[in-house]
Amino acid sequence: MTSRAAVILAAGQGTRMKSPLPKVLHPVGGRAMLDHAIDAAEALDCARIVVVVGTHSPEVRAHVEKRLGAAAVAVQDPPLGTGHAVLAAREALAGFSGQVVITYGDVPLLKADHIAPAFGADGVTVLGFEAADPAAYGRLIVGGDGALEAIVEAKEATPAQLAVTACNSGVMAVDATLLFQLLDQVGNDNAKGEYYLTDIVALARRGGHATRAVFADEAAVMGVNSQAELAEAERLFQQVRREAFLAAGVTMPAPHTVHFAWDTAVEGGVLIEPNVVFGPGVSIASGARIRAFSHLEGATVASGAEVGPYARLRPGASLGENTKVGNFVEVKNVTMGAGAKANHLAYLGDGEVGAKANIGAGVIFCNYDGFFKHRTTVGEGAFVGSNSALVAPVTIGAGAMVGSGSVVTADVAPGDLALGRAPQTHKPGWAARFMETMRAKKAKKA
Amino acid sequence: MTSRAAVILAAGQGTRMKSPLPKVLHPVGGRAMLDHAIDAAEALDCARIVVVVGTHSPEVRAHVEKRLGAAAVAVQDPPLGTGHAVLAAREALAGFSGQVVITYGDVPLLKADHIAPAFGADGVTVLGFEAADPAAYGRLIVGGDGALEAIVEAKEATPAQLAVTACNSGVMAVDATLLFQLLDQVGNDNAKGEYYLTDIVALARRGGHATRAVFADEAAVMGVNSQAELAEAERLFQQVRREAFLAAGVTMPAPHTVHFAWDTAVEGGVLIEPNVVFGPGVSIASGARIRAFSHLEGATVASGAEVGPYARLRPGASLGENTKVGNFVEVKNVTMGAGAKANHLAYLGDGEVGAKANIGAGVIFCNYDGFFKHRTTVGEGAFVGSNSALVAPVTIGAGAMVGSGSVVTADVAPGDLALGRAPQTHKPGWAARFMETMRAKKAKKA
Amino acid sequence: MTSRAAVILAAGQGTRMKSPLPKVLHPVGGRAMLDHAIDAAEALDCARIVVVVGTHSPEVRAHVEKRLGAAAVAVQDPPLGTGHAVLAAREALAGFSGQVVITYGDVPLLKADHIAPAFGADGVTVLGFEAADPAAYGRLIVGGDGALEAIVEAKEATPAQLAVTACNSGVMAVDATLLFQLLDQVGNDNAKGEYYLTDIVALARRGGHATRAVFADEAAVMGVNSQAELAEAERLFQQVRREAFLAAGVTMPAPHTVHFAWDTAVEGGVLIEPNVVFGPGVSIASGARIRAFSHLEGATVASGAEVGPYARLRPGASLGENTKVGNFVEVKNVTMGAGAKANHLAYLGDGEVGAKANIGAGVIFCNYDGFFKHRTTVGEGAFVGSNSALVAPVTIGAGAMVGSGSVVTADVAPGDLALGRAPQTHKPGWAARFMETMRAKKAKKA
Repeated sequence: MTSRAAVILAAGQGTRMKSPLPKVLHPVGGRAMLDHAIDAAEALDCARIVVVVGTHSPEVRAHVEKRLGAAAVAVQDPPLGTGHAVLAAREALAGFSGQVVITYGDVPLLKADHIAPAFGADGVTVLGFEAADPAAYGRLIVGGDGALEAIVEAKEATPAQLAVTACNSGVMAVDATLLFQLLDQVGNDNAKGEYYLTDIVALARRGGHATRAVFADEAAVMGVNSQAELAEAERLFQQVRREAFLAAGVTMPAPHTVHFAWDTAVEGGVLIEPNVVFGPGVSIASGARIRAFSHLEGATVASGAEVGPYARLRPGASLGENTKVGNFVEVKNVTMGAGAKANHLAYLGDGEVGAKANIGAGVIFCNYDGFFKHRTTVGEGAFVGSNSALVAPVTIGAGAMVGSGSVVTADVAPGDLALGRAPQTHKPGWAARFMETMRAKKAKKA
Repeated sequence: MTSRAAVILAAGQGTRMKSPLPKVLHPVGGRAMLDHAIDAAEALDCARIVVVVGTHSPEVRAHVEKRLGAAAVAVQDPPLGTGHAVLAAREALAGFSGQVVITYGDVPLLKADHIAPAFGADGVTVLGFEAADPAAYGRLIVGGDGALEAIVEAKEATPAQLAVTACNSGVMAVDATLLFQLLDQVGNDNAKGEYYLTDIVALARRGGHATRAVFADEAAVMGVNSQAELAEAERLFQQVRREAFLAAGVTMPAPHTVHFAWDTAVEGGVLIEPNVVFGPGVSIASGARIRAFSHLEGATVASGAEVGPYARLRPGASLGENTKVGNFVEVKNVTMGAGAKANHLAYLGDGEVGAKANIGAGVIFCNYDGFFKHRTTVGEGAFVGSNSALVAPVTIGAGAMVGSGSVVTADVAPGDLALGRAPQTHKPGWAARFMETMRAKKAKKA
Repeated sequence: MTSRAAVILAAGQGTRMKSPLPKVLHPVGGRAMLDHAIDAAEALDCARIVVVVGTHSPEVRAHVEKRLGAAAVAVQDPPLGTGHAVLAAREALAGFSGQVVITYGDVPLLKADHIAPAFGADGVTVLGFEAADPAAYGRLIVGGDGALEAIVEAKEATPAQLAVTACNSGVMAVDATLLFQLLDQVGNDNAKGEYYLTDIVALARRGGHATRAVFADEAAVMGVNSQAELAEAERLFQQVRREAFLAAGVTMPAPHTVHFAWDTAVEGGVLIEPNVVFGPGVSIASGARIRAFSHLEGATVASGAEVGPYARLRPGASLGENTKVGNFVEVKNVTMGAGAKANHLAYLGDGEVGAKANIGAGVIFCNYDGFFKHRTTVGEGAFVGSNSALVAPVTIGAGAMVGSGSVVTADVAPGDLALGRAPQTHKPGWAARFMETMRAKKAKKA
């Protein structure tokens, strides 16, 4: 295979997003659009990946540097068109002699599989799509031999050309040396005074180089320029994920109410009830049941586990086989052993719960002292009574019990019972007198 | 501008709603349909607004009196048709000499902008719409000069007339004096024995007055007569709001799962995750993040704040910059200073939380004694340990701490630590013995 | 009426479901598809119902035996086609001489009303449907006299036959004696070597028996073979329920976000807000309000009650008139008297709450000791302060009070006040010193 490189254009201002967040950092499926583009480039085994950024968005530059290193950043300044943007990558590609694909930081649904066919041919290959409504897209004029004869902008097209539905996605693969040769010839003699990448097709043909088009689905090449288009990209993303999980044997009575992240892993034989939201980093094993209104992020759920309804699993929640995390329970950075349960209204943060341990309703792992986080350990088969507060760092031994309503600040040995609650006292008749007084007071006020 | 008045017809029984709630009080976007109609009249600067009510719904009358005063109510009794209904408003309009628009309490999506073009011309102006499926609607026969030649009921229409898609919305604007002159001539010689407002068009033409039609979108003039139509009106309402917020720069991965109220204010640069419900009275500043499964009503959220998932903000919740209100937390009538946090399972009712204060998991503001509500004040930078109960009225001073699991009934001075919890005691081996006994008991029962 | 029997085919492996759960046990509307089929047979007053199961799914056999008894099970082993499957029911139908309808365990939307027209005629009656896209379905060739002339498989059909949109649902009604006579003649001389039930139509005609087709909606006869089809069946099921409830006067601003179970009963005049999920066994009386994000299962809600947002009602929750169950509150197996309230963050499990009693925020009924469940009784007009733990078995008398943050292990007499909390103590300046130390520590670490 000829070695590959990718130039990802991410220098647009994205003003139509009307958001302080740079456009390409807006997420689809919980992952920045730019990262989807980088993922595709990585999946194509690109030896070099260069992201062209503008000067207006230091966050984008920082994002790329963090993921790919400083060498992957090329700066376009000022912004003078797509051709000019690719030229900004010349230095970062110095010495590279394979094929370069040009992709976009705002085309989040384009995967390696869509791009791969563009590689491998001489000259210039353009990735096209059949547009349902071609409107203002540039038309691809493809000859009988499959060669790409021209890209015609909609406003310069003849009626016959306008009837063509093959359109230009903007993605191209070109031999690196040829790419920059052609770009050096691109002029800016147009209304906007910009250097257009598209122009290299005509230049290549003029120079006797082969030009061709390959095609992808329209959905795959959709670009995002507004919040509405971002929402549409998300909708398409979710649709693909939902169909894939159904096909894999995941039961979902209302798939359109389940929101997946880019990396959600769910095995066949899992039940996902309506209204479930997955953040990144979740994996669910066959036989688990994710009940309605649950929210999972960075969590692992083993077979036979039941999550929710209304469970919140946060990063580091690791639920063993046949565990139960019930309604209004939050679990963060806690490993729960097989058969452990926390069924109601609890906060389990930073710690470990042993197999078959039972965490009562309203129990809180007090993991934060205002400055640092501390760990709580509950042993195998332990029983923590309802409404107890376990003040970390603290250990409840295996088979130990904590009486309901206790505050536990010291370790409890295995098999012991710990209590931390006041004795019950009664004031006979007090409530009756109080209510009488208050009722009178209230009647007076009203 | 000629002075304007509105007569809003709201006397229908709404029996097809099959609901004890009067039809016009059913909400769209969290606001009674009748109020939407009154809003439009007010936005048109109507000097007088008269709502015609029936005798069957004292709640509707009370609703109008509360908002507009008793003079705005006209009673139609018995119900003898739309023309008769408008006549019921004659007394309330006595002395008014401008233009009167007749609108409806069950047409919730009609805004001032749709109605405004109906004003300003002599004679009678009818608001029409192009119907996708004209079916039983009255057809507007418009001449070459734009004049309205007739309104033809579907069952009396010729095939050529039935092919007309311009239909009558029922909304009309007429000079006040002319309106009642015409209505006095309307007869009830028809199958139902009713007086139809529509008849004034023919009467006007016969009397040599100008008649014309202006047009609005079909969606804007839709009337609600059943729960299904109410749901459809709500759907259209939400669609408009969602598109408007996206266009304004609000990021919504799943806009169709976000439900807005009529007055929800969200700035561009806000992220709203899936499954968020807004009741009336909410405003969100740019840079805030509203997470999944949150429910907000009567709340203000400042920039940088993070709400949810599963946060419930109720009226009077005012969240300062960079505050955090997390999962299973309810905030009602509480002002939170910048950077204050209540991340898990808490109830904050009636009070104030100072900047950077930290409210632990499971903390309850005990604001209600069964008769009256009392306030809780937590000072700047204070730390309220998990599972504590603050019994109002009570004040936790700035920089003070409350130990986890405490019941606080007296004020805590700034910088002090308050504890209200029993010492921890242990019963060695008790849990082991108890579990053994119980296991045996359970085995015996099984 | 001729006596009726049903043979329900449920022996398919359902491999395309890719799920460990047998296909026919997958639920639609919260009820196993097989049970929908049995429901239809029961509603048709079938004197005998036989379910044909395979040997691969002991759960299906157990399911049928539990509901209908062992005599209702017929085993097909090995699986040699639909005709062979019906033959497996011969013994279970021994002595039955009426009409037999053959239905399917994976056709969940087919109701008695759809099937009933198939009964009553001599010979063989096939239930057909008009297919929007006939594709691979067998075509019903119906003569001018309404008689069914043939069922033609798509791959053997002429172009003219392929243009027929009347298709075979697979459901048939036949006289019992005739059925088995015909089945005995069915051969397996085909590509798969299977015995096809469909063949009895041609055999019946050859034998001079009447054959006819009756028709049902395509949606009603849809079969489920994949998770995607199961989701589609659920969607159709929900659509029908939603439309029916709207028509009955239930107000739903977002009906598409409300998920009903097969037996949900909601009266007109109920408001159901967005995002509500009903499990089986719920009934809601007129005038109740089910707020957003609520989850109800096995619960009864009386008039004037307000549930949610974020309320979870579990089996045995019985809410009296004008009760309130608010956010993050779980109620299981508890009867609440008229006007009783539990507004915030509480767990009420196994017990009784008297009329007008008030359960404070964060209150837990500690009903489980790790082995057995116990009951909590709260008397009429009692007030249980916030964050209290009631350790069952325990009784709070009528008009009694429990101070906030108490642990109650002993009964409280009517009118008494019970307290179980430690006195509040202060450590002056401790918090200020602690915070200073920790801040320094944190700064050092950072």
